[in-house]
Amino acid sequence: MAAGVKGIAILGSTGSIGRQALEVVRRFPERFRVVGLSARSNLALLSRQVEEFCPAVVAAEELAGDGAGARNPLASRATVLELVAHPDAELVVMAIPGAAALVPVLHALQLRKRVALASKEAVVIGGALVAREVAAGAELLPVDSEASAIWQCLRGEERDVARLILTASGGPLRSRPVEELDRVTPQEALRHPTWRMGEKVTVDSATLMNKAFEVMEAHWLFGVPWERIEVVVHPQSIVHSLVEFQDGSVKAQLAYPDMRLPLQYALFYPQRGQGQFTERLDLVRVRRLTFEPLDPARYPAFALALEAARAGGTYPAALNAADEVAVELFLGERIGFTDILRLVRRVVDEHRPGSELSLEEILAADAWARQRARELA
Amino acid sequence: MAAGVKGIAILGSTGSIGRQALEVVRRFPERFRVVGLSARSNLALLSRQVEEFCPAVVAAEELAGDGAGARNPLASRATVLELVAHPDAELVVMAIPGAAALVPVLHALQLRKRVALASKEAVVIGGALVAREVAAGAELLPVDSEASAIWQCLRGEERDVARLILTASGGPLRSRPVEELDRVTPQEALRHPTWRMGEKVTVDSATLMNKAFEVMEAHWLFGVPWERIEVVVHPQSIVHSLVEFQDGSVKAQLAYPDMRLPLQYALFYPQRGQGQFTERLDLVRVRRLTFEPLDPARYPAFALALEAARAGGTYPAALNAADEVAVELFLGERIGFTDILRLVRRVVDEHRPGSELSLEEILAADAWARQRARELA
Repeated sequence: MAAGVKGIAILGSTGSIGRQALEVVRRFPERFRVVGLSARSNLALLSRQVEEFCPAVVAAEELAGDGAGARNPLASRATVLELVAHPDAELVVMAIPGAAALVPVLHALQLRKRVALASKEAVVIGGALVAREVAAGAELLPVDSEASAIWQCLRGEERDVARLILTASGGPLRSRPVEELDRVTPQEALRHPTWRMGEKVTVDSATLMNKAFEVMEAHWLFGVPWERIEVVVHPQSIVHSLVEFQDGSVKAQLAYPDMRLPLQYALFYPQRGQGQFTERLDLVRVRRLTFEPLDPARYPAFALALEAARAGGTYPAALNAADEVAVELFLGERIGFTDILRLVRRVVDEHRPGSELSLEEILAADAWARQRARELA
Repeated sequence: MAAGVKGIAILGSTGSIGRQALEVVRRFPERFRVVGLSARSNLALLSRQVEEFCPAVVAAEELAGDGAGARNPLASRATVLELVAHPDAELVVMAIPGAAALVPVLHALQLRKRVALASKEAVVIGGALVAREVAAGAELLPVDSEASAIWQCLRGEERDVARLILTASGGPLRSRPVEELDRVTPQEALRHPTWRMGEKVTVDSATLMNKAFEVMEAHWLFGVPWERIEVVVHPQSIVHSLVEFQDGSVKAQLAYPDMRLPLQYALFYPQRGQGQFTERLDLVRVRRLTFEPLDPARYPAFALALEAARAGGTYPAALNAADEVAVELFLGERIGFTDILRLVRRVVDEHRPGSELSLEEILAADAWARQRARELA
């Protein structure tokens, strides 16, 4: 490969993040070369991507039927793991949704590939395992806008952190009366005010489950204790997160909401790309940035998820798996919006974690929770 | 001196910045030791400071009369320069107001002493000379809250800067009808909404002359061209300034307004101090951060000063000297508020810069402009 050109593998290339990662690559052909692509569905788009970017390896798996029964996080392991291991793949963009990301993330980290992580679920359910690899020298670069903001603010001074402050838009239901939440339709829950994202993460933004996942991601990626990570509601999604240092100084990262910016940052790291995807931030046009407390009555999933996170072990794996099933059922109009929390809570309450945390235990808890959630629904 | 203890000289120790620098030193006696103190007035306070901090060197000069006629930037040079040169003074805090700071700043930089600069006028009038020393390896640490914010945001990534965005509170007269500005009294101009500072800089904040000085400081300190430095009015003074990078990402530094934070940052640099002087920033309590365009009709001094800056040479020295005289006359109720601009503009218009920029030329322009401003008044 030509000097100065970074070889990139993108896992989950047909999803929202995967497509935007390819937009960054398309814009800087002299800097990046696509070595591998993988997708679980939308094979028509995948073949167009293959035609355009000519990767050396492709891993594809069409889902049978609606996917609800057939989805198995390990199903495509062989080819996805081969893709990750390709010698020209210096950077692996992990954009596989859900728990399925954990195995390839760990594999890539063990091979000491640099990983740009959009699939925060891998860290949510396997945080301790991922952190172990990072402590041993693996490089994990966040792609989530909040985690990227923190990472950017920590640049040049990773020590002396007093507090991380994650911002949350509040999602599409921020102004909806709490007593009406049980009547929210999938269409309403998918109408995000500031971000265009995949369906699962958009529903998780409506329940704020997603924000709890980001707290977990920040905890494991930056090694900050739970009690020093806070969330503030910031409806404009301009301030993507903040870091408070020991001396009281706070740094923030700002931009109009666009996932291509944190993707570009991770792809170019440790440099910065020389072109902008979004307009330049115009503070006068923005006029005001507002901040509100997080209302626990509106977002009970947030507290539940953080309870599971603090409990540790396989609780987050059970929580995440139950949430994946519950959101899918909600999107299929099989359960109501507030049933998501009910279902997830019951699964977490019933969960009995094993005695030690291993990949096998996590995958077993994941499988158990998926099945239990379906039974309970 | 004990290992790990930084020897500090404070020039201008009885002024607002000098006193706050001593508050930081007082709080961390195991980290800092006062080697030298200097003051031009308030000898009663200076002797109390000497008693408390036991510096090795003291430079003092009581002003005769009201000081208007006696003020000469070079008068106390001998002792102040000795103080700067003291072998135990590793860090020199420059808090001498006005043009008088230039000679000791250059001397300290030439001796390769680390300089924490509150006296932005030294850079305003001698920017090219100061920048030359910095390029040759001298260390100049900003103390102004805006410049400190930019410096903090640039940490770990000084390249790839697209734009600096300085915030301005808008000063005490932001909401005063423009046609009433000629009736503003010193008491009104000194009533700053967010910062408590010395009288001169508070009046300069009312005219926004101070913000133009900060643009010049940022230009010389960070090597960013004039056209890439912007100012936005931000009345809450929470966001102290921002940096936009080439990829469109923006970093900001935030805190409740308190000069002890940037002072502490400069004193501890490259570490961060472990204690806070201000309350922790509570965004929910802040609720909103607002941004407005700078109104050129309200702040004509801003454009005039930047014109002088772009013209270069000794124009900024003439501008600054005329402003020092004009503000003093305004505070003494000898001229009106809008006369400050009128007087400064006439002096700058009449100024004929020399053929080359040297310290002598700058000091000559300074002396000429002071005298001319007094004659015109």
